[in-house]
Amino acid sequence: MPTQEGLTFECDKLIRFHHCDPAGIVFYPQYFVLFNELVEDWFNQALGIDFADFHVKQHLGVPMGSVECRFVSPSKVGEMLRLNLRVERIGTSSMKFIVQAQAGGQVRVEAKLTVVLACMKTHRAVPITGELRDKFSAYLMSPPCQH
Amino acid sequence: MPTQEGLTFECDKLIRFHHCDPAGIVFYPQYFVLFNELVEDWFNQALGIDFADFHVKQHLGVPMGSVECRFVSPSKVGEMLRLNLRVERIGTSSMKFIVQAQAGGQVRVEAKLTVVLACMKTHRAVPITGELRDKFSAYLMSPPCQH
Amino acid sequence: MPTQEGLTFECDKLIRFHHCDPAGIVFYPQYFVLFNELVEDWFNQALGIDFADFHVKQHLGVPMGSVECRFVSPSKVGEMLRLNLRVERIGTSSMKFIVQAQAGGQVRVEAKLTVVLACMKTHRAVPITGELRDKFSAYLMSPPCQH
Amino acid sequence: MPTQEGLTFECDKLIRFHHCDPAGIVFYPQYFVLFNELVEDWFNQALGIDFADFHVKQHLGVPMGSVECRFVSPSKVGEMLRLNLRVERIGTSSMKFIVQAQAGGQVRVEAKLTVVLACMKTHRAVPITGELRDKFSAYLMSPPCQH
Repeated sequence: MPTQEGLTFECDKLIRFHHCDPAGIVFYPQYFVLFNELVEDWFNQALGIDFADFHVKQHLGVPMGSVECRFVSPSKVGEMLRLNLRVERIGTSSMKFIVQAQAGGQVRVEAKLTVVLACMKTHRAVPITGELRDKFSAYLMSPPCQH
Repeated sequence: MPTQEGLTFECDKLIRFHHCDPAGIVFYPQYFVLFNELVEDWFNQALGIDFADFHVKQHLGVPMGSVECRFVSPSKVGEMLRLNLRVERIGTSSMKFIVQAQAGGQVRVEAKLTVVLACMKTHRAVPITGELRDKFSAYLMSPPCQH
Repeated sequence: MPTQEGLTFECDKLIRFHHCDPAGIVFYPQYFVLFNELVEDWFNQALGIDFADFHVKQHLGVPMGSVECRFVSPSKVGEMLRLNLRVERIGTSSMKFIVQAQAGGQVRVEAKLTVVLACMKTHRAVPITGELRDKFSAYLMSPPCQH
Repeated sequence: MPTQEGLTFECDKLIRFHHCDPAGIVFYPQYFVLFNELVEDWFNQALGIDFADFHVKQHLGVPMGSVECRFVSPSKVGEMLRLNLRVERIGTSSMKFIVQAQAGGQVRVEAKLTVVLACMKTHRAVPITGELRDKFSAYLMSPPCQH
């Protein structure tokens, strides 16, 4: 019985003038701002979780725990980046995302982002349980065998 | 004969209101902006290389090739971050920096940043030679044996 | 004969987590980043001018000459801002935009932005002529009488 | 009896690579980020008010009410901007600052910034009284006659 692959979330982001540096290419911290938008879009558009309510009403957030990122090729103003997100691992209170940015048939950036589910009042980790875990799990790359 | 340790470059950065997010802590892409300032300060203050001339006159830059970064503990507005930079490795045209941010006796962020010496007109890698290599090498963590 | 009103360009921008400050509201310089996106969108979507080509190939830009801006009411993460742009005046080489941001039936920000058409190589003003003037003029609030 | 001039607060800000756009000059919203730093520095260094405590402990802030700003001449990476701040007017709960940025003997930007003293929990204006009013008043350009 084949291992079932999880879903991939995709969205497109236009490279703006304000993302670029004097060399005319994306200033690399701006990729992390775009990854932040990607995660917001994933919550809002795919998971059915209002990201603003998640923060403001539930006081939850997904602050970054660690990042591994390769900047393979530069991106320029006016390019449309296709971003995609998959979940590699879901731990007790953390998740590892595999994120890729592509344009013009090339990988531009690839990253592993480990976020922590945290209470934004206490800045403490919170276990990922119930409905949240179910929603995140749909994007898990190789979910465990069901039998 | 003991291995000689290289120099460490240090500078302090105040955490500003504009670095912080609605959770009241540094928005993580801002750490990379601060690391960019750290490298600029290293050039200007320690290496004796005017970073602006390096870009504008020599058309050289040190774009990011890859990043490994752990966000150990959050930082808040008004804290003074002590940043430090050492060089772990100097390759043909790339360098790996070890960067750490500390405050209140705690490590807040630790990162390995691999930058590439590149021509900002062609976006191509350029060999690190001569005086540049000498200057960077003074900050190399464990320089090769001299005998 | 009634004065003909010009067109209004509108677009929607989601208030992102990264636009907001520790007070949980949009950090005001971010409104200017959004206005920059608005002008880019106007070029790309309404005027039929590729903003990236305009910069990269024609070396033209519309740097800001002056700003008058009122921040009427704060905006929060998750709100959808409706931005609109009209042209109040077209001079020899400058234009004055009237820009408004609204959400929840309230004006949040209103601004007059005077941009200059400039060569980005020389940073000198360039006259607005021909097809460019025609395109901009369609958004002029009260075009001069035609007879 | 001559009108006594108030104090001027000055500080220097290096134009960083990350302040600049693909045209190689400061992206104008970044001036407002620098003005924000200027106000923070004024609190911390001149007024003897810890800006972080002001926010975090007293829940006070000085959000922007309105801006009038002229971008007179562009600034480039590596330039040292001299910023200065004076207070033109102190109202019940608002203040108007006159801010100027200079480099190389030229005015680069001049602005009038009207900020509001506000409670950051309620986003409501708060009267400027007592010690705060005294501290701000020392920077008032033309204080009222004392007799």
